[in-house]
Amino acid sequence: MAKKEETAVTPTREDNYPLWYQEVIKASDMAETSAVRGCMVIKPWGYALWENMVSGLDEKFKRTGVKNAYFPLFIPLSYLEKEAEHVEGFAKECAVVTHHRLEKSEKGLKPAGKLDEPLIVRPTSETIIGESMANWTSSYRDLPILLNQWSNVVRWEMRTRLFLRTSEFLWQEGHTAHATREEAEERTMQMLNVYTDFVENHLAMPVIKGRKTESERFPGAVDTTCIEAMMQDRKALQAGTSHFLGQNFAKSAGIKFQTRERREEYAWTTSWGVSTRMVGGLIMMHGDDNGVIMPPRVAPAHVVLLPILKKSADNSGILEYTHKIADALADTTYHGRKVVVEIDDRDTGGARGWEWIKKGVPVRAEIGPRDMEKDSVFMATRDCAPRDKKGVKREEFIASIGDILDGIQNNLFNRALAFRKEHTHNIDNREDFYRFYTNEDGNRIAGGFTNAHWCGSAACEEKIKNDLSVTIRCIPFDSPREQGECICCGEPSSKRVLFSKAY
Amino acid sequence: MAKKEETAVTPTREDNYPLWYQEVIKASDMAETSAVRGCMVIKPWGYALWENMVSGLDEKFKRTGVKNAYFPLFIPLSYLEKEAEHVEGFAKECAVVTHHRLEKSEKGLKPAGKLDEPLIVRPTSETIIGESMANWTSSYRDLPILLNQWSNVVRWEMRTRLFLRTSEFLWQEGHTAHATREEAEERTMQMLNVYTDFVENHLAMPVIKGRKTESERFPGAVDTTCIEAMMQDRKALQAGTSHFLGQNFAKSAGIKFQTRERREEYAWTTSWGVSTRMVGGLIMMHGDDNGVIMPPRVAPAHVVLLPILKKSADNSGILEYTHKIADALADTTYHGRKVVVEIDDRDTGGARGWEWIKKGVPVRAEIGPRDMEKDSVFMATRDCAPRDKKGVKREEFIASIGDILDGIQNNLFNRALAFRKEHTHNIDNREDFYRFYTNEDGNRIAGGFTNAHWCGSAACEEKIKNDLSVTIRCIPFDSPREQGECICCGEPSSKRVLFSKAY
Repeated sequence: MAKKEETAVTPTREDNYPLWYQEVIKASDMAETSAVRGCMVIKPWGYALWENMVSGLDEKFKRTGVKNAYFPLFIPLSYLEKEAEHVEGFAKECAVVTHHRLEKSEKGLKPAGKLDEPLIVRPTSETIIGESMANWTSSYRDLPILLNQWSNVVRWEMRTRLFLRTSEFLWQEGHTAHATREEAEERTMQMLNVYTDFVENHLAMPVIKGRKTESERFPGAVDTTCIEAMMQDRKALQAGTSHFLGQNFAKSAGIKFQTRERREEYAWTTSWGVSTRMVGGLIMMHGDDNGVIMPPRVAPAHVVLLPILKKSADNSGILEYTHKIADALADTTYHGRKVVVEIDDRDTGGARGWEWIKKGVPVRAEIGPRDMEKDSVFMATRDCAPRDKKGVKREEFIASIGDILDGIQNNLFNRALAFRKEHTHNIDNREDFYRFYTNEDGNRIAGGFTNAHWCGSAACEEKIKNDLSVTIRCIPFDSPREQGECICCGEPSSKRVLFSKAY
Repeated sequence: MAKKEETAVTPTREDNYPLWYQEVIKASDMAETSAVRGCMVIKPWGYALWENMVSGLDEKFKRTGVKNAYFPLFIPLSYLEKEAEHVEGFAKECAVVTHHRLEKSEKGLKPAGKLDEPLIVRPTSETIIGESMANWTSSYRDLPILLNQWSNVVRWEMRTRLFLRTSEFLWQEGHTAHATREEAEERTMQMLNVYTDFVENHLAMPVIKGRKTESERFPGAVDTTCIEAMMQDRKALQAGTSHFLGQNFAKSAGIKFQTRERREEYAWTTSWGVSTRMVGGLIMMHGDDNGVIMPPRVAPAHVVLLPILKKSADNSGILEYTHKIADALADTTYHGRKVVVEIDDRDTGGARGWEWIKKGVPVRAEIGPRDMEKDSVFMATRDCAPRDKKGVKREEFIASIGDILDGIQNNLFNRALAFRKEHTHNIDNREDFYRFYTNEDGNRIAGGFTNAHWCGSAACEEKIKNDLSVTIRCIPFDSPREQGECICCGEPSSKRVLFSKAY
């Protein structure tokens, strides 16, 4: 048996994927659990990634005419009661504010000043934004309203995992109201396309676009569209959703307007969102046994320069040379953003290099006396093996930094796509389907994506879910019409749908 | 008596300043009160201003090495108990979460799932960030830690005013920990200077820098520095604070480190913050009887183009000409930000122009058939009277847009500075001082800024506060040493301090 190469993260993905996920976050210093139940501390390295995600998405939203706004953190209890489907969805898991001050007692501080009506810390702002939209809309001239909010939301979770499932998380929620059905449907698809563009081109995460089945739909939505990505344990993660809500939501919120023909009508609305969960997805899709890998388009830093310094020697030459390179790089831009360069001149030897590998900086460049002599740097890219380094002339390094970064970005996307293809199968036989999702192979979870026929009945969908914990992730938009038999009941089907285990 | 000119906002500042403030916000469509007690809805126009403030400040923070992070919304009750001074300050006015789900009952939903320990919705994150800093610090090598958080906070307020005092508001809180006292003191001043630079150069708000007296200091701080601005009712508004906390805070949070000499020591910390209150300050400093005035450096839009369209006529020529100008302007930058241009091609005549005046867009340009013939636009700037318009050649308009905007920016600053100078007096006599702050002149509140001698005793400070509602805003850094007598008790004083009524 070949000796396993040592890795910076233990266990490896192969050995224990869920534990690897925890450890890789620790190793990269992106986040940690806090003393507050279910809430996380997003540390600077993780938050910088989130900031880049926010600014990339925000720019795309605004280009479609969406405007940001901010609505209250608290939702009066009575608002939730208005939306029957909301209650079912969120009442089980929410933070309830019942008092508005603290009072000293013998046992220390205790809540005082009971509120007449309890307030819920927003699990989503649907109802409170709906209230405003109703106030702001009287004529077709007031439409469309195209709003987005970046904020924190709270959903009480019993089992939490950093980024993937936390009681408090950060997200954006878009809410739009339109005068016609067609316009709202177009907006639903437009925003799904914005997400697809962002996730594929900025996060280097290939996704499958489709529509949810009725049972997986957002409560109250007429249509839920989504993008689904395959993680390295071959499970699916939903990377964004865009909902067409028809007039359902406008009816419960009272968003009415007078049409051009002076009829009163309810507006047509949409909503769409992504959250810090996306950070978890990025880690799970690109990370390896040495740490996180940051796609260059959203990396908190693009390049780290590692001057090799000697104790009790004059290092000023090396440092000057390093800073010269840093300045030249920082004067260049990469996809409209300034190239961000870190210089790590700490004297900690090999550990220093491994720290940046674990953090996933796309490009590392060591700079020793011999590199300086040759007017070059000793470069490694994070998508390759840690020891895979090469000398590059300084001028060439600086001039081609954009190409180097694009190369990494494309490589990350292409290998994720190849991985997904490798683990996606058409299955036409119930026995094969069940075997595919139950045969455990060592420590690895069985499965992957399957394209299989489905008759359209909720009963078959539920049976598969109960038997295998496998769900229909979506009905892919590009799934061709094709005659077949339901993988569960054998009844006729006209289309394959995407099945998988999922986060 | 001369007939008063009609204004877009009623009442005028002169007639009723507090009510003018409410009406000017309504007129500009920046924000509104929500159905949730004490919370506001920040509408797109107000939020876009806040976003520009955030990005301007954030860039300056980062240039000093500060990194953003995110900490939990909830603070366990026991954390507040640790900080005695915190309890006094915040316990009276906080949102307390006591339950984690809702249950159906006969009377509708009711709170269920009582928490073992109540959670407080953060009124500030001092304690929870302190907890993390303590965990992250073991050696002098871990210092400095330079953190900032952009977030929402909640302080239960009984009387609220949009932006100035709301139960929920948006802010940033910076927290830094250092190995030496000197470094922490320098950081305190560095961040005050960042605020000063931002507020004066981006918001066009002249401020006075100084130090708070002991009684006005942040609870637990060794030194509170601040910047104070004069509003148009001649009252002061604190526009930013930066605190040197000594080792007090590190001691209660347990932020310890081993020094280079292997001694254990507590860290030296600072904190500093500004909030959406700054939006209120900007409105009160620059707004006039026709609406808000946006300083160009932070304006949500720099220019609005108003093509004059004719009903049942072919307007395509005018529209094409307008879009050509918009495209050319949008290709230029103003202080590193793309020039933002709005085209308002609605057919609502004069009302349309007034809408943009009320919103405070720095430059308006009307474009009618005659302007197009002359290859020009008919331009007005928001710092001048609404009817003060002039024809400008198109090429010149585009080429000089940066200068036009700088002209407005400087004018706003200079007139605010002149106003402050006009209403700032040296007073050396108790009787004059009392008269200055009590003589009402029609509807106008008496007062302004006074530089007066103060003996340094808390008793005198309190007496003046009780008698006149006048407080020492700060001990200005540039106040020269000068012998005098305390304005209250007549005892010797070596320095003038800044007195004023305040928000």
